[in-house]
Amino acid sequence: MVSLKGKDLVSIRDLTKEEMELILSETDKMIPIARGEQSSKILKGKILATLFFEPSTRTRMSFETAMQRLGGGIIGFASIEGTSIMKGETLSDTIRVVEGYADIIVLRHPAEGSARLAAEISSKPIINGGDGAGQHPTQTLLDLYTIKREAGEIEGKKVVLLGDLKYGRTVHSLAYALAMFNAEIGLVSPPTLRMPEEILKDLKEIGAKIKEYSSLKEAIKEADVLYVTRIQKERFPDPTEYLKVAGSYKVDLKILKDAKENLIIMHPLPRVDEIDPSVDETKHAKYFLQSFYGVPVRMALLKLILVG
Amino acid sequence: MVSLKGKDLVSIRDLTKEEMELILSETDKMIPIARGEQSSKILKGKILATLFFEPSTRTRMSFETAMQRLGGGIIGFASIEGTSIMKGETLSDTIRVVEGYADIIVLRHPAEGSARLAAEISSKPIINGGDGAGQHPTQTLLDLYTIKREAGEIEGKKVVLLGDLKYGRTVHSLAYALAMFNAEIGLVSPPTLRMPEEILKDLKEIGAKIKEYSSLKEAIKEADVLYVTRIQKERFPDPTEYLKVAGSYKVDLKILKDAKENLIIMHPLPRVDEIDPSVDETKHAKYFLQSFYGVPVRMALLKLILVG
Amino acid sequence: MVSLKGKDLVSIRDLTKEEMELILSETDKMIPIARGEQSSKILKGKILATLFFEPSTRTRMSFETAMQRLGGGIIGFASIEGTSIMKGETLSDTIRVVEGYADIIVLRHPAEGSARLAAEISSKPIINGGDGAGQHPTQTLLDLYTIKREAGEIEGKKVVLLGDLKYGRTVHSLAYALAMFNAEIGLVSPPTLRMPEEILKDLKEIGAKIKEYSSLKEAIKEADVLYVTRIQKERFPDPTEYLKVAGSYKVDLKILKDAKENLIIMHPLPRVDEIDPSVDETKHAKYFLQSFYGVPVRMALLKLILVG
Repeated sequence: MVSLKGKDLVSIRDLTKEEMELILSETDKMIPIARGEQSSKILKGKILATLFFEPSTRTRMSFETAMQRLGGGIIGFASIEGTSIMKGETLSDTIRVVEGYADIIVLRHPAEGSARLAAEISSKPIINGGDGAGQHPTQTLLDLYTIKREAGEIEGKKVVLLGDLKYGRTVHSLAYALAMFNAEIGLVSPPTLRMPEEILKDLKEIGAKIKEYSSLKEAIKEADVLYVTRIQKERFPDPTEYLKVAGSYKVDLKILKDAKENLIIMHPLPRVDEIDPSVDETKHAKYFLQSFYGVPVRMALLKLILVG
Repeated sequence: MVSLKGKDLVSIRDLTKEEMELILSETDKMIPIARGEQSSKILKGKILATLFFEPSTRTRMSFETAMQRLGGGIIGFASIEGTSIMKGETLSDTIRVVEGYADIIVLRHPAEGSARLAAEISSKPIINGGDGAGQHPTQTLLDLYTIKREAGEIEGKKVVLLGDLKYGRTVHSLAYALAMFNAEIGLVSPPTLRMPEEILKDLKEIGAKIKEYSSLKEAIKEADVLYVTRIQKERFPDPTEYLKVAGSYKVDLKILKDAKENLIIMHPLPRVDEIDPSVDETKHAKYFLQSFYGVPVRMALLKLILVG
Repeated sequence: MVSLKGKDLVSIRDLTKEEMELILSETDKMIPIARGEQSSKILKGKILATLFFEPSTRTRMSFETAMQRLGGGIIGFASIEGTSIMKGETLSDTIRVVEGYADIIVLRHPAEGSARLAAEISSKPIINGGDGAGQHPTQTLLDLYTIKREAGEIEGKKVVLLGDLKYGRTVHSLAYALAMFNAEIGLVSPPTLRMPEEILKDLKEIGAKIKEYSSLKEAIKEADVLYVTRIQKERFPDPTEYLKVAGSYKVDLKILKDAKENLIIMHPLPRVDEIDPSVDETKHAKYFLQSFYGVPVRMALLKLILVG
C-alpha cells in the first residue's frame, strides 16, 4: 500500500508516481472543504509550524488555510525580522525545539539544502516550502493537479513552459514531474535563458518527450497547457535588451488567436507583466484557480502525512 | 427580509437603517460569546483573511478575536514589512489570490478607495478595515452600538462630537449614522478644525439636527454622549497654539462637574491626553467598554455576512 | 482547596509550594495532549492574547501551541515592529483594550515590573512571559517539571547551576524554587559571575542547602542535575579572558566521564557553545525534552487559571 504517513517532502523527486497519484486523488476529496462548503475536524488538536526564514506570504497563507480548514492549529513566524529565533542558534537546534511544539513543520529557508538537513534531524515530518535555488515540491504538486483537473489529464498533453527556463526552479521540478506522467514538454525561452543542458539530459534519461520552439507564436498552436514564468530584469545586463525580450514572451489576446480552443494558461504568481490583464477574462486563464488549488493540495498532503 | 449574506461592507453609507438595526440587534446576542461565557462553532471551517497593508493592531486583534470566538480560523498579515505580498503585484491580483484561500477578507490599506476596488474584484465579501482618509465602517457600528447600549437608545440623544472634526473620518461617518437614527448632533472644535461645510450640508440634507457650541463648557451641560477625538499636534504650525487649543478641549473632572448625571464619554482610542486618567474611574467613562463592543459588533457582521 | 482559577502569574514567588505541586501534577495529565496523541476542547471559545513587546519566539510559540492544543484561539503580536500598538499609548491603556478581547494575557515586555503593573490593572489574568531583568516564572516551572520527571524527584537531588549566576534571572528563580522543594543547590561560575550575595542570603533564609564549587570538574561528580546557562561575551571587557573562561565551563564528553550514571543535563536554550553537540547523543542530554515540557506546563497553567 502506498502511504505518506510520517514522511518528509523535501523534493518532488522523493515521491514515486504512485505517491503523486495518491496526493492528486486525495486532493479531489478536499475541494469542498477548501471551498468552505464542508467542514472537517480530521486534524483537530494537531499543530503545524510554519517556519519562514524568508517571507513567502502566499505559500504561508495557503498552508495556514489548509491546516485550519482541517481543524488544526498554527504556530510559527512569517519572517525572521522581529523574531528571536536566530540569536546565534543553529538551524538544527531550532528544528529540535520546534519538533517539541508541532506535529509537522513547513520550512522556508534561503539556503539550498536546508530542508534536507531539517528532515534528517527532525523526528516530525518536514515539508519543504522552498529552499533558495533548491526545491519547492508543493508548487509542483499544485501545478500537476491544475493540469489534471483543468486539462482533463496529464498524460499525452503538450505542456509548453515559457520564460526563464534557466534559473526558474519551478519549471525544472515541473518538467521532471511531467516526464513521469508522460506529458509532452515544450520549451520556449530567450536564448540566454534556455533550460540547462544537464537538466535536459536528466529529463531525456527518464524518457521525457521534449520539443524546443523558436517562438511563442510557433508553440502556442500546439500547446494544451501554457505555463508562463517571469523573466527577471536582473538577468539582463542591458535594460533595452530586457524590454525587447520581455515583449516577445508576453502573453496577450493577439498571441492567443492561434491557440487551441481548450488551451489553459498557468502561472506560479505573482505575475508582473508576462500576462496582459485582458487575458484574465478569457476562458484560458487558470492561474488564479491554480493558486486556489494550492489549498486542497496542501490539505491532502497534511492529511496523508499526519493521518495516513 | 433584510439580509447581509454575501455582502461587502465598504462604507457605512452602503448600509440601510434596517441593515444597521439588524447588526445592532445581532450584536446583543453575541455579547455572552464575546465575553467567553458561551462558546460557538457557527463559523467552524471558515477562514477570515486579515490583510493589513498598514498596521492597525486593535482592529486586527478584535476581528481575529471575533472570528475565533465563533469557531473560525485566521490567515493574513499584520503589516507589509516582512511579507512578500507586494513584490510588484497589483492589489487586484493579491485579492484574487486571497479569495481563493479565505471565505471573507478584512482589508486595511493606506489608499482611499482601495476597499471599494477590492470589493469590485472579489467574489468573496470584503470588509473595509480602514482605507486611508476614507471609511472605517466597523468603527461607526461599534460607536452606534455603544450609544444604544450605554445611553439606552440613539434616537433623541444629544451626541456631542469633540475635537478634530475636520480631518477625523471617524466623526464624519458617525455623524452620518447618528442623523439616520435621529440623534441630535452637537459639535465642539477649535475654529481651524471645524466640520467641513460640505459634510454639514450633506448631514442637513438627510435631516440631521445639528448644533455648534463655542466651548466644551457650554456643550457639556446638554450632552448625553460626549464623543472625544484626538487633536493632532501636526495640524498646528505653531506648537504654543497647539498647547493652548489642546488644553481647552481636554476632558477632566473639573469640566465634568457640569455634566448630566447619565453622560457617557466615548473615544475611538488610542487616546493621548484628551481625557485625563482620573476620568477613567468615573461612571461616565465608557471608552474601554466601547473598545470591547468592537468584538461582538464584528462577530455579528461576520455571522450575518457568512451565514445570514 | 488549592486553586489558581482567575489568578495572575507574575513571579515564581507568587506561588505557594502547593500551587506549584498542583501545576506539576496537572502537567502530567497534559503530556499526551501536548504530544498530539489526544485532543482536547477544554478551552474552546477562549482567547489567549500574546503581547510580545520584545520578541521571544520560543516562549510565544510554546504558549500558542499550548492554547491551541486545548482548543483555544490566539491573538496578539510577536514584536512591536510593524504594529500600531504603541502610538504613544500607555501600557495601562493597551492592557485595558486587550482585556476586552481576550480571556487571558501573556505579556513579554523589556521593562522590569511591567507584568506586575499589567496584573494590577487587568481584570483578566496576566502571565508574565518575561519582563526584562525581572521574572520569567513559566521557565522556572518547566525547569522544575523536567527535574521531577527526568530525575525522578526534586527533593534531595543535587542540582548544579553552571555559568553566569550573576545576571541570569533564570537561575535566580530556579534556585528559589529548588530551595522550596528541598533540593540541594550547587553553584559553579566564573569568579566575576558568582551568584549575588543578597540572593544567597535570601536562599539561606528559606533554608536552602547551597554548596559552591571551584570547578565544573569538581561539581560534576556530585551532580544529579547539571543546569547549564550561557556566559555572555559582553560580560567580559577582554575577549581573550572570555575565551579562557568559556572554555573552562564548557560541557563536553570529556568532562562527563566523571558524571553520575543518571546525571541529567538541562539548558534554557538557545545554547551557543556551552554544550558541545556531541553531548546531544548521550543519555544525559535532556535540554530539548526540557523545551518540549514547556508546552504541557503552559497547558496546565492555562487550564488551571481559566477553568480551575
